[in-house]
Amino acid sequence: MIKVAIVGGTGYTGVELLRLLAAHPEVELTAITSRALAGTPVAELFPNLRGHCDLAFCEPDIEQLGRCDLVFFATPHGVAQAQVPDLLRRGVRVIDLSADFRIKDIPTWEQWYGQRHAAPEMAAEAVYGLPEVNRAAIAGAQLIACPGCYPTSIQLGWIPLLESGLVDPGRLVASAASGATGAGRQGKTELLFAENSDNFRAYAAGGHRHLPEIEQELQWVQPAGSDPARVTFVPHLLPMVRGMHATLFANLRKEAEIEELQRLFESRYTGEPFVDVLPAGSHPQTRTVRGTNMCRLAVLQPGGRDTVVVLSVIDNLAKGASAQAVQNMNIMFGLNETLALESPALLP
Amino acid sequence: MIKVAIVGGTGYTGVELLRLLAAHPEVELTAITSRALAGTPVAELFPNLRGHCDLAFCEPDIEQLGRCDLVFFATPHGVAQAQVPDLLRRGVRVIDLSADFRIKDIPTWEQWYGQRHAAPEMAAEAVYGLPEVNRAAIAGAQLIACPGCYPTSIQLGWIPLLESGLVDPGRLVASAASGATGAGRQGKTELLFAENSDNFRAYAAGGHRHLPEIEQELQWVQPAGSDPARVTFVPHLLPMVRGMHATLFANLRKEAEIEELQRLFESRYTGEPFVDVLPAGSHPQTRTVRGTNMCRLAVLQPGGRDTVVVLSVIDNLAKGASAQAVQNMNIMFGLNETLALESPALLP
Amino acid sequence: MIKVAIVGGTGYTGVELLRLLAAHPEVELTAITSRALAGTPVAELFPNLRGHCDLAFCEPDIEQLGRCDLVFFATPHGVAQAQVPDLLRRGVRVIDLSADFRIKDIPTWEQWYGQRHAAPEMAAEAVYGLPEVNRAAIAGAQLIACPGCYPTSIQLGWIPLLESGLVDPGRLVASAASGATGAGRQGKTELLFAENSDNFRAYAAGGHRHLPEIEQELQWVQPAGSDPARVTFVPHLLPMVRGMHATLFANLRKEAEIEELQRLFESRYTGEPFVDVLPAGSHPQTRTVRGTNMCRLAVLQPGGRDTVVVLSVIDNLAKGASAQAVQNMNIMFGLNETLALESPALLP
Amino acid sequence: MIKVAIVGGTGYTGVELLRLLAAHPEVELTAITSRALAGTPVAELFPNLRGHCDLAFCEPDIEQLGRCDLVFFATPHGVAQAQVPDLLRRGVRVIDLSADFRIKDIPTWEQWYGQRHAAPEMAAEAVYGLPEVNRAAIAGAQLIACPGCYPTSIQLGWIPLLESGLVDPGRLVASAASGATGAGRQGKTELLFAENSDNFRAYAAGGHRHLPEIEQELQWVQPAGSDPARVTFVPHLLPMVRGMHATLFANLRKEAEIEELQRLFESRYTGEPFVDVLPAGSHPQTRTVRGTNMCRLAVLQPGGRDTVVVLSVIDNLAKGASAQAVQNMNIMFGLNETLALESPALLP
Repeated sequence: MIKVAIVGGTGYTGVELLRLLAAHPEVELTAITSRALAGTPVAELFPNLRGHCDLAFCEPDIEQLGRCDLVFFATPHGVAQAQVPDLLRRGVRVIDLSADFRIKDIPTWEQWYGQRHAAPEMAAEAVYGLPEVNRAAIAGAQLIACPGCYPTSIQLGWIPLLESGLVDPGRLVASAASGATGAGRQGKTELLFAENSDNFRAYAAGGHRHLPEIEQELQWVQPAGSDPARVTFVPHLLPMVRGMHATLFANLRKEAEIEELQRLFESRYTGEPFVDVLPAGSHPQTRTVRGTNMCRLAVLQPGGRDTVVVLSVIDNLAKGASAQAVQNMNIMFGLNETLALESPALLP
Repeated sequence: MIKVAIVGGTGYTGVELLRLLAAHPEVELTAITSRALAGTPVAELFPNLRGHCDLAFCEPDIEQLGRCDLVFFATPHGVAQAQVPDLLRRGVRVIDLSADFRIKDIPTWEQWYGQRHAAPEMAAEAVYGLPEVNRAAIAGAQLIACPGCYPTSIQLGWIPLLESGLVDPGRLVASAASGATGAGRQGKTELLFAENSDNFRAYAAGGHRHLPEIEQELQWVQPAGSDPARVTFVPHLLPMVRGMHATLFANLRKEAEIEELQRLFESRYTGEPFVDVLPAGSHPQTRTVRGTNMCRLAVLQPGGRDTVVVLSVIDNLAKGASAQAVQNMNIMFGLNETLALESPALLP
Repeated sequence: MIKVAIVGGTGYTGVELLRLLAAHPEVELTAITSRALAGTPVAELFPNLRGHCDLAFCEPDIEQLGRCDLVFFATPHGVAQAQVPDLLRRGVRVIDLSADFRIKDIPTWEQWYGQRHAAPEMAAEAVYGLPEVNRAAIAGAQLIACPGCYPTSIQLGWIPLLESGLVDPGRLVASAASGATGAGRQGKTELLFAENSDNFRAYAAGGHRHLPEIEQELQWVQPAGSDPARVTFVPHLLPMVRGMHATLFANLRKEAEIEELQRLFESRYTGEPFVDVLPAGSHPQTRTVRGTNMCRLAVLQPGGRDTVVVLSVIDNLAKGASAQAVQNMNIMFGLNETLALESPALLP
Repeated sequence: MIKVAIVGGTGYTGVELLRLLAAHPEVELTAITSRALAGTPVAELFPNLRGHCDLAFCEPDIEQLGRCDLVFFATPHGVAQAQVPDLLRRGVRVIDLSADFRIKDIPTWEQWYGQRHAAPEMAAEAVYGLPEVNRAAIAGAQLIACPGCYPTSIQLGWIPLLESGLVDPGRLVASAASGATGAGRQGKTELLFAENSDNFRAYAAGGHRHLPEIEQELQWVQPAGSDPARVTFVPHLLPMVRGMHATLFANLRKEAEIEELQRLFESRYTGEPFVDVLPAGSHPQTRTVRGTNMCRLAVLQPGGRDTVVVLSVIDNLAKGASAQAVQNMNIMFGLNETLALESPALLP
């Protein structure tokens, strides 16, 4: 049994992680911390866990965390970087679901997140936890920077095209949309039911924190010598709870037919347990991946013109956060990669 | 392994049954029938099952069904009664999720369902599949009439009060509400997204088909010699996908305090794996049981007056249909009653 | 032109009042106050009002308010009672949308609202602004206590039955449900989109602040000497933005047929511009009154038994708050009662 | 008074047109046709119109229609083209909300709509009813082809950029999303509440019927000699009732700063009553235009790079259909262009 703790478990990624770990046969969950709710039973805050989790939230205690095999951070940015160095020194492995270690270039991180980075040397050491790209490195990692939701859905959609050099990396367009849980579990007026129901809007179209992460990671899969990927990225807020949909546009640099593009995607993701390439021309629905670690993709070539459209769906809390974290854990600890991640989506 | 078939698998109870059975370690699913969609892969209609179910819908074939250990009927009323006698003769056990065998009084059934009953003798033989009342009979049954969603949520809320004789059975009031999946997966204008979103309404308030089932079953748990339970029942349609909420009102026949009522409920459901009595005064939320076989209950006594309010929530497709059917199957075949039904609800 | 100000305009009743008054041909809106947002243009907070309202929120200024003909209070309870006496002395008429002056019995008010009442003498003087009962008194009133949303939908449903003495006033049951705007525009976690979508729950079932208001007002329409109305009232929170639905149960004291009940309702509300009695057995939908001052009612007698069910729908922000306030204003100032309230509901 | 009839009034554009015309002071609505529902009162199908519309649906009668000043067609494609020639001969003016007369190139129309065009000469004569481009021609038109919802939101977003020649017309990208009413009021399984709630998906990404309309109309506003506009267009279906959001990407052909772009938009739409240019960098919300004829736009330049993003929102049933039709009517009959279209949006 892997001894596990969660730091910061009162948000949506926290409860999703709890839901998955509660059913994981190789995990012993020993602690879940929250300064604000210390003493409150987890099942009181999240009644779906009544009978599944007997823990109460507790104050973070470095000694207790230090006795774990693995600690997940499901905290706002800035928290993990302060605590991770100590844990790593104690031999604890860490999966950070926050943005603290995703950006390698520290000035870029500090610019987008508006604070000094407390552990810049850790960012260099952290492995970016996208198994479809970094599986081997994940297996041996001490510290995982678990990818953001937009970066996951967008990268999985573009990786085959960028690896192959088929498209112009300088003019990528990503129009993506997230369910409301992507904005977190904070009592903000703009996130009220009455503000988001029967409403749709873009946000942060001038610049979203996930953009540098997307561009950084896409460049790593491009052939050497390529012009760097440049993405125009507009996120939107959907009137729904879970789900993320990315609509991706790229221009072909040479002629290609849809059959070739389809083969490219199928070939790239052969054997990947959590990437499902639909038949060319399909329209994946977010609900088909609800609660699962699956990414469903479809590639299209509208009108046979030279723009390739990729549609990519994930559950923002699952493959976009907590289930992907569990996938990373399974890889790190030599377990079957799909363990506790096999359930089909709840549909409808 | 239990060899299982599903007759009529294209509706919402069908896909929910498939989702649960796909993850059941003791079930081999051999066939799922649909005349209209014979030949279509199940995963094409329900893409959440891609990778989880390789079957295609097939024409119903009595020989094939006859080789199963168990056949589920997830059909409109009138279908099961025509096919069940033959299956039972072949030694196949049957769980019918439709209304065909729930009503013991055939004229009553014929009045509410507007057709002649094709197998009245079977209705007498069928065991009403509410494990919290009929567990022993279910274990030995050949034919299960799986309860409707409203009857399940309402009975579980009132059983302790009626068994104990504490309340007046002649003036029971049930105001209940169902998610839109309760109305089925048929392309009716009144069920369109645009008709039900941001809308709430009662329906069938003058008389709903579940009313005689509710009154029939409640009478069986009453002490001998009681006046029969009479229920005023108003169902409502909620702008949500899954979930059922019953708000139940009953008048105390003698003084009782809330602590006593709470103890009554806790005592009645001790050891029941799928009935969760919340602390007195709680307000159960439908989402806490989404996708699960759980019923969450709370008892209240507003203002200390003599009306007892019980709040009862289930997932209409799960404890209200398909998961309850799996619970029955587990009991019938001597399996752990909670097998494949342990996952916590997907929340949020 | 009536010179009007709104105190506390940043909530949902505030923006609804603004929407209605912006289109009212006899109103000059002179000020809308908010301490927190003083200086912010109203149309910045509520972009639907761009081009319809040029005001900015301002600090409350008693001199400025004192020059108005009418001041609306759309404030939390406790605010109006502190300011209304001064305004009345200055000859300003007041419509209070909060609960400050609805309860005549001050100890009762203080018990339910948890604070001392600052102007108990005003509560006695205030006219309860339900035009269908108090039209004449409203016309001459200086101070209107505008009814709550639950009390409005419930009273309009029961008034004909209680006035006539046809039903037992001691065993009334009201199961009612409100859209999320009923909970206000505050950034509370429990009101987030992600918490309320695809979810339904009761709340305050042990005792809601609108209960004493409901019982107080129902008693005033009962025949002299009647037992006082006693209501078991369970409110619910709907996953929708606007709309309120009351499902009302009452026991007949003598035999009555549905035709007689229907005539009773039609007769009672003849000539009422904002109460629409549907044919007996109908199921009114909340969306049919969205954005309007209309109450739609239907009366039913399930199974011909002795329980009368009334279904009553309003828009909680409109007939349940701001549109009813405008109706009161029209009556107070001798205008056509329906002025600026004629638009049909936005459906779908 | 303008004598008006509506052909085909049982869909969502029909009821929206009824809602608007019922409140129009210069319109006398004489008939609304539906073969299927002839004899049914309009207010029975659409209860929001109880008290606002006393008509019943009637069989279409060319004599009766021929006595009108104006006939609206709110029919599926193919219907108007069969009846319009006769009406025009009788001197009746026509506003067609369907796609019958939007495409000038008849083979293109026939290819996308899969049938022979019955009145090709009328397509040449029809005026495309986008007032912001064709106001003068609309005033004198006999036959208006009212624009589709996607074309309206997309054209209004790009017109300033294409007229000025600032952007490359060969690489336009439109990612747009519609509320469920855009798919019509037909009882299709895929449009059920249970299929669309908490779900998001693209559709017709390989080719949508509105694409040729968009490209045709954009070319007409380009400077002479320009390369023709080529658009990659992906529509999406939103889990909401009303609203349309277009996210538009275009590449600058020469350097431009955001201030210049903003001035370009403000200048282009000065005096337009139904186009509201928000401050640069804003994110318009669909709900701010719900039920209105308004289009709200914002222009952004993410990261100061050379891609211009325009965000454009309308109500798909209003400015995207019925309210725009009323705007056209007002222009055709010399009325104030905003008559009966002034109400602010219902928000929340």
